[in-house]
Amino acid sequence: MPTLVLVRHGQSAWNLENRFTGWWDVDLTEQGVQEAWDAGLALKDAGLDFDLTFTSFQSRAIKTLNLALEAMGRLWLPTVKDWRLNERHYGGLTGLDKAETAARHGDEQVHIWRRSFDIPPPLPDEGSPWDLSKDSRYNGVPIPQTESLKDTIARVLPYWESAIAPELKAGKRVLISAHGNSLRALVKHLSGISDADIASLEIPTGKPMVYQLDEALTATDRYYLHERTA
Amino acid sequence: MPTLVLVRHGQSAWNLENRFTGWWDVDLTEQGVQEAWDAGLALKDAGLDFDLTFTSFQSRAIKTLNLALEAMGRLWLPTVKDWRLNERHYGGLTGLDKAETAARHGDEQVHIWRRSFDIPPPLPDEGSPWDLSKDSRYNGVPIPQTESLKDTIARVLPYWESAIAPELKAGKRVLISAHGNSLRALVKHLSGISDADIASLEIPTGKPMVYQLDEALTATDRYYLHERTA
Repeated sequence: MPTLVLVRHGQSAWNLENRFTGWWDVDLTEQGVQEAWDAGLALKDAGLDFDLTFTSFQSRAIKTLNLALEAMGRLWLPTVKDWRLNERHYGGLTGLDKAETAARHGDEQVHIWRRSFDIPPPLPDEGSPWDLSKDSRYNGVPIPQTESLKDTIARVLPYWESAIAPELKAGKRVLISAHGNSLRALVKHLSGISDADIASLEIPTGKPMVYQLDEALTATDRYYLHERTA
Repeated sequence: MPTLVLVRHGQSAWNLENRFTGWWDVDLTEQGVQEAWDAGLALKDAGLDFDLTFTSFQSRAIKTLNLALEAMGRLWLPTVKDWRLNERHYGGLTGLDKAETAARHGDEQVHIWRRSFDIPPPLPDEGSPWDLSKDSRYNGVPIPQTESLKDTIARVLPYWESAIAPELKAGKRVLISAHGNSLRALVKHLSGISDADIASLEIPTGKPMVYQLDEALTATDRYYLHERTA
């Protein structure tokens, strides 16, 4: 049976400040570091092991993976990093906190951007401080200016099909450390969640989600590992 | 011009205790963590950047790389991990400190093992606590029982030729985080150091060694980055 575990990165500085982060490369908080470590311990305690790991181009997901692997004694596992596992790009909302966003756009509009399936946030302002076009990690990458959840899914799923699913079918046990919305894309696909329901599926930080899959990679079950009580 | 930087992992627990480590997977000390971070800052200050990184299967080298990359803001760079960059395998000396080794084998014999080019340490004792044959990271790997420096070179150089040199020739800027003896293997090859002289070449922990190479990967210069004085 293929082994697949998804983990959302530990708490980031902007999770804590309630700011739209998206592609901005924010670090983990101390709590986020602890969550990542505990995720690794929980995986080890559960007797789960891996052959291959995937993460995004963003430090908070990479550090979460590195910390979890260290806690498992598995730092030596191969890791593939790809921008297509990045968080949803929040466009012109990037960097704004909840109050600023509501003041600028109104609560109702913000709710639409957060919870709609296919309405992207506005484009970034000209000269935005959150512009990534000069970040060398994205050389050659078609950086989006803003993304709806649907847009995010449209770049996550082809990567799943071309890079991750073949490894699972070949018998590799896979761990993915990524982001709220890139993981929503995978959960929507694997668990057959509707367009209407997927945006409200909350995936907690640092809690490994274990998928039970059949040979065709159809999900038969998914669950979070229990809290470590030691 | 190809860019190549070598860095030996930061101080490990057994560097500090003066024990033969080899393939045993010992962690960095707090000082070792700081050395790794400082190596990354020194690389960043020097304006050095990379496209691809290599390390061993051993946690102290992987953590050194991860910490240096984090300090550089380059966690997203691809990393290839391979056992052929591991430290020399010290066989039956693994785990022994200087005093134990001298008491068991005599100072002169220990000096021979440390400094000869082609005399391997004795085989591990039957039932040694430092046996790695059940460590899953080495599934399918021809784990040595003990290695001379010559033996170490004999598995490092084919990896250099097949995996690293082609990337440099293709224009990739490469950073390697590895170990005293796997790095001696590379330095011997690149700088043409004799069998007689290579064992006494000391490579300090956490100090990036920058190679200037021509297009054929012949070294025209090598130097350590200056201490960071901030």
